[in-house]
Amino acid sequence: MASGPVAASRSKTRGVVLNLIRAAHTVSRVELAANSGLTPPTITQVVRELMEHGLVVEVGRGTSTGGKPPTLLQLNAQARYSVGILFERNICVVIVADLAGHLVARTSFHGTELLPPDQALPLVASRVEALLEAVGVERDKVLGAGLVSYGPQDRQAGVLLTHQPTAEWLGYPIAPKLSELLDLPVLLDNDAAAAAIGEYWLGAVEQNSTYGCIYMASGIGGAVVSEGQTYRGSSSNSVEIGHISIDLAGAECGCGNRGCLENYAGPGAVIRQAFATGDLARRLGLDPLGNDYLADFALIAAAAVAGDPAAHELIEHSARHLAIGAVTMATLFDLDLIVLAGPSFATAGPIYQTLIEHEVQQRTFARRAHPVRVVQSVSGSDAAAIGGAVLVLKSGLATLDLPQPD
Amino acid sequence: MASGPVAASRSKTRGVVLNLIRAAHTVSRVELAANSGLTPPTITQVVRELMEHGLVVEVGRGTSTGGKPPTLLQLNAQARYSVGILFERNICVVIVADLAGHLVARTSFHGTELLPPDQALPLVASRVEALLEAVGVERDKVLGAGLVSYGPQDRQAGVLLTHQPTAEWLGYPIAPKLSELLDLPVLLDNDAAAAAIGEYWLGAVEQNSTYGCIYMASGIGGAVVSEGQTYRGSSSNSVEIGHISIDLAGAECGCGNRGCLENYAGPGAVIRQAFATGDLARRLGLDPLGNDYLADFALIAAAAVAGDPAAHELIEHSARHLAIGAVTMATLFDLDLIVLAGPSFATAGPIYQTLIEHEVQQRTFARRAHPVRVVQSVSGSDAAAIGGAVLVLKSGLATLDLPQPD
Repeated sequence: MASGPVAASRSKTRGVVLNLIRAAHTVSRVELAANSGLTPPTITQVVRELMEHGLVVEVGRGTSTGGKPPTLLQLNAQARYSVGILFERNICVVIVADLAGHLVARTSFHGTELLPPDQALPLVASRVEALLEAVGVERDKVLGAGLVSYGPQDRQAGVLLTHQPTAEWLGYPIAPKLSELLDLPVLLDNDAAAAAIGEYWLGAVEQNSTYGCIYMASGIGGAVVSEGQTYRGSSSNSVEIGHISIDLAGAECGCGNRGCLENYAGPGAVIRQAFATGDLARRLGLDPLGNDYLADFALIAAAAVAGDPAAHELIEHSARHLAIGAVTMATLFDLDLIVLAGPSFATAGPIYQTLIEHEVQQRTFARRAHPVRVVQSVSGSDAAAIGGAVLVLKSGLATLDLPQPD
Repeated sequence: MASGPVAASRSKTRGVVLNLIRAAHTVSRVELAANSGLTPPTITQVVRELMEHGLVVEVGRGTSTGGKPPTLLQLNAQARYSVGILFERNICVVIVADLAGHLVARTSFHGTELLPPDQALPLVASRVEALLEAVGVERDKVLGAGLVSYGPQDRQAGVLLTHQPTAEWLGYPIAPKLSELLDLPVLLDNDAAAAAIGEYWLGAVEQNSTYGCIYMASGIGGAVVSEGQTYRGSSSNSVEIGHISIDLAGAECGCGNRGCLENYAGPGAVIRQAFATGDLARRLGLDPLGNDYLADFALIAAAAVAGDPAAHELIEHSARHLAIGAVTMATLFDLDLIVLAGPSFATAGPIYQTLIEHEVQQRTFARRAHPVRVVQSVSGSDAAAIGGAVLVLKSGLATLDLPQPD
């Protein structure tokens, strides 16, 4: 019998090999040895185990480089699945991806608003169950779910450290509870970090770029990926760009800081300004009770894109302020690319992209060393949920449940 | 003969082993194999080569864990040396460190002010030569010099990308030219990054902390170290905290951005305010021509510490604004520690430390996940120069000049 640490190391090796096969699409054992730094006998054994468990299949022969043409390997994409869940007050997106990371199914629904956790989570779980059933994915093939939401979080414990949307959520063990309900492993992560990972996964950014993601939903978050690694910091609560101060004379924010970017550029601020701008709110049919930032903000964004001057001015005002934060982010993280992701860029993304790119190119400190580009997400509102599913695929869960060799 | 790539890999392996021996102080071959992941035969061979070249020596036997007590290895500290140079308009610090990273000698002199590069660099080179001679370090034992200065830089090319202090410096190949003058390899790096590395080297921060360094000399820079790695970003021009905007209504800065932190909190801003504050500038004997920010700022800082109310108010004003940047840095990089380093914290450091720590603990986004401490540098003005020497020691230069095995 393999001992504990050896078994763990074997599982890790399997995870590494699995991720290399996924990244390469088709690959030979010889190439796997070269890419992993593992010895050919180790590769042979690990591939045999992965094949025995149905995760990897042989798909013909490659080109000979002298001797016998090598057998090519591929993931058996339908062998396992993962679930990604974007969880927000005003939007939830659930996606199912196969082992190769291809999108298999998607659903979205209005978020859980002000529901307390013990009512909100069963609602989310029921949608996940329904989606899996609808596409006929067997439960024992689901590796787990990546639950992505706003911060701050205790990512290891799967706990939210915020009183958003209500005080009951502060310290609530959201991942363990959802795991209980779904009877699946659930990983918690930051929505912006997941969106950045999702964009990378979808091939939207070059492999070697240092890129930031500005993620705007009800609030504004961020993430940075450098050399393929998500910047995590001390507790995975990094790049919270919505709560940096851009105005030393600004008002106190609920977060404890003053003059926070989110209070100038975020959907909530834009909606407040719309109610203070003549009859704009009434004309657009905004909800005076302010129950749904995302929906009301989308109405303003759509009016701006359609040419309504008052709405356009508000979106530009938001973009100009967001640009201050984008310059700070580019200057501190020395970025060469910023991706605008999340549901609140879905409609007026081009207005934000043009204005932020202009400012970033004028004002970022390292612009003499290299250009800084700003682009829109390729996956729109779904980047974060896709990233959640990818986190599960990359986590090693795919190999943890395999029996250990004798 | 070893081929190119194999020779490079051998040199890299030697560098890894050398750095492990340095970090451990004394270590056995068995421990080296365990810590490096290299095989025992590889360790035996690499150690033999390092001993043949006099870089490593045997220093007796360790404790037996069953069999023969293992022979312990140590660096031969006097086998090689490195030079660290902090280069600033108003201060230059030169230090010499031995192979083990211990400080062997130090000198400092007033910076090169507005001298053009072709006059400034010979001055720096002559001081380095004089210091090496004074302490009797033979030239063929000097690995190289780490030149650290402000940004932006093209670190690979060894070129400054700034028109500070005069236009002639923009694009000037400062590292290649100094290398020519000294007949030594010269590595260019950012002063704040070097200071952060220096603090780590001196044991001022815990190994696993995610810490930021705010570096204040004439200007304000920064660096972040996470999991022992300096955050570099796209072009090593990261964490330029002096040029993030803290005031959306602020004036345009020479850097291209608006409302830059440095223009509220930096020595230049404090000196300008002193001239606008009654007779303070005259009382303290500040230079009306403004030739030396560091000296004038030190006078104001000393008066503040001595209890001069007007001077104290200016330093507090600077600290309050710097705190805004510190909170942004802690929120974006999810820091658990901020180190205040550089010559401009030497006198009034405690005022800055107290005020910035208070603000950071109140306002940083992730403070519910973990505390954020603020401490003063252990090495005062020398952190950056020490970091420059450390960069050389860790660069692999120590093993590059060894002949390759047949």
